[in-house]
Amino acid sequence: MLLLIPGPVQTRAEVRAAMAQDIAPWDRDFQAVYARVRERIVGIAHGTPGVHATLPIQGAGHFVTEAALRTFVPPGGKVLIPVNGAYAQRMARLAREAGREVIAIDLPDTRGATAADILPALEADPAIGTVAFVYNETGSGIVNDVEGIGAAVRAAGRRTVLDAVSAFGALPFRLDQHPECDTLVFTSGKCLEGMPGMGFAVARIDRAEACAGHAGSWSLDLSDVLAHARRAGWGSIRFTPPVQAIAAFDVALDLYEAEGGQSARLARYRANADALYEGCAALGLRPYLEKRHQGPVIVTVHQPADPRFDLMTFVEALKRRGVLISNFYNTAAPTLRIGAIGAITPEDIRGAVKAIGATLEEMLPKAA
Amino acid sequence: MLLLIPGPVQTRAEVRAAMAQDIAPWDRDFQAVYARVRERIVGIAHGTPGVHATLPIQGAGHFVTEAALRTFVPPGGKVLIPVNGAYAQRMARLAREAGREVIAIDLPDTRGATAADILPALEADPAIGTVAFVYNETGSGIVNDVEGIGAAVRAAGRRTVLDAVSAFGALPFRLDQHPECDTLVFTSGKCLEGMPGMGFAVARIDRAEACAGHAGSWSLDLSDVLAHARRAGWGSIRFTPPVQAIAAFDVALDLYEAEGGQSARLARYRANADALYEGCAALGLRPYLEKRHQGPVIVTVHQPADPRFDLMTFVEALKRRGVLISNFYNTAAPTLRIGAIGAITPEDIRGAVKAIGATLEEMLPKAA
Repeated sequence: MLLLIPGPVQTRAEVRAAMAQDIAPWDRDFQAVYARVRERIVGIAHGTPGVHATLPIQGAGHFVTEAALRTFVPPGGKVLIPVNGAYAQRMARLAREAGREVIAIDLPDTRGATAADILPALEADPAIGTVAFVYNETGSGIVNDVEGIGAAVRAAGRRTVLDAVSAFGALPFRLDQHPECDTLVFTSGKCLEGMPGMGFAVARIDRAEACAGHAGSWSLDLSDVLAHARRAGWGSIRFTPPVQAIAAFDVALDLYEAEGGQSARLARYRANADALYEGCAALGLRPYLEKRHQGPVIVTVHQPADPRFDLMTFVEALKRRGVLISNFYNTAAPTLRIGAIGAITPEDIRGAVKAIGATLEEMLPKAA
Repeated sequence: MLLLIPGPVQTRAEVRAAMAQDIAPWDRDFQAVYARVRERIVGIAHGTPGVHATLPIQGAGHFVTEAALRTFVPPGGKVLIPVNGAYAQRMARLAREAGREVIAIDLPDTRGATAADILPALEADPAIGTVAFVYNETGSGIVNDVEGIGAAVRAAGRRTVLDAVSAFGALPFRLDQHPECDTLVFTSGKCLEGMPGMGFAVARIDRAEACAGHAGSWSLDLSDVLAHARRAGWGSIRFTPPVQAIAAFDVALDLYEAEGGQSARLARYRANADALYEGCAALGLRPYLEKRHQGPVIVTVHQPADPRFDLMTFVEALKRRGVLISNFYNTAAPTLRIGAIGAITPEDIRGAVKAIGATLEEMLPKAA
């Protein structure tokens, strides 16, 4: 089965194999592995050792995102969120339910957010301390302008929290050029092609210290994760983690480096997304995004208008041909949601597009 | 390597093998597996379908414990916690940082808590709505009196939240006989011998509904987990889970049933703990607990008083003989912390005791 979904992604056999072992998380041999993983992550983020640290939160990406909001936005504090997709909406809900005041800027889900979208609201309200936003919106496949937004927030003297869940490792970002960024967050099962189960924040140490006492949740307190690492060592993980997912992630990072790191991975994903975009268009499937707004992580196309089309039936039929795509959608209009990330190549994509075409023909036969 | 630790436990090869696969959590085939896992868990808890439901929270056991406290104790509400070990202390911290008022009853970590320990405080303060407590305290190895405490709380018209993390599946408990229990919580990597990564609450549906709006955290809201299941189906998981750990857990439940369920598992663990207790005593290691207070999950013995003894050096030396025990302790006095749970037998234990003896002789040679 070929998984064409935006995570948990298709992985390589070496990564999966690392899952099938029993490990004690506090074992010295494993602590060495884990300490190295933390360092490698800071490196991929272009963080500065001593300035930035990897702070893990086990579980879903929502958990580490909530932890980032709870830690870096004080209780009752104001956070501005440009909302142009399902994951930005979720970020807003996480902040609201944690008792933070959310200023949501509603935008269409068909183009990336820019500095111009947020500046008027930011300038109008000096009480907004943080802009929280999504790098790659896996709802539709758009990419927000992290450079422009970061520069604007920096100039305005505010802070950012960046949801880089489906971007980190593929889309470029340098923490050393973004001092306004309190933290970026991501998970193990996306562009770094590990298995799901671990979330990571790469955060400014000074800010994580300054924000101690904000979280209102021991489980989701990044300041306490930092304090734990300082006390117990950088190889130690606070609370039992899905330790096999960390071992597999270490293998995934080996493969990432061997491939050539961020630029090589982005090039492959971009080629995957292009093959998907063009291939689907050739099948008569209308793209949800204009080409210039199409990111490299996920391609969405409108569902056929034909009344015989049913998404779940289509996904199950395509699965019988060896290709799995999402059986739900997160866009304003009904779409097919097809991932371009994971251990897949443009060659895999071309095979998948053929399978999509054959499935559509089977499901929507032309009148004789 | 033989893992003699109270989780993540030694697993069987069939369980580990299920980890090495890519799975889309929302795939229909997997949803059938997961829906069945939820039903099987309610069965093991002796819950009543329609009255009780399995509500998952991915990540560490601390997360599902915090979720239970946030959901079933209202913000600012009073919760009484008998504190006789490291995990009860953690429960108290989770509740406090979540803004609940904790009435802690401090007790020694050398015997189980009983109804008599909590009744005076409970009767003195009608504002205490919930008694939250640990079933098996993996700090020292004591077992609290869940039947007595449950009956007392029920008679007093209050509610309980039960941390059954290291008890569930081995120590007996019937939700159908504990209407005062809002929820018990446990994790995948303990007595059911799965891999770590998933937490589960088995909760009263009526109470989870009545407590909507309490949590103050979208991530850790069991009412929302219930609402999601009702909306999206019982095979659906809210937010990306460590899906491989769920697939492995399904295999672990097969093995659990094949072994004979709770009574058979308890008998094996009891035999393991007895072999450990007697074996360590025969080596001259003084038990931390009197035999009558010794539970079947973990055995703690005092560290040798010999100044040449060093815990980390000992654990590493024992590891070279193929046995891994905890390299830390959670008791009031320094102890060796040795697990009796997981896919291990009394025969394994006897071999491990020999290795412990040989390691001690090597480390603390008798003067010639």
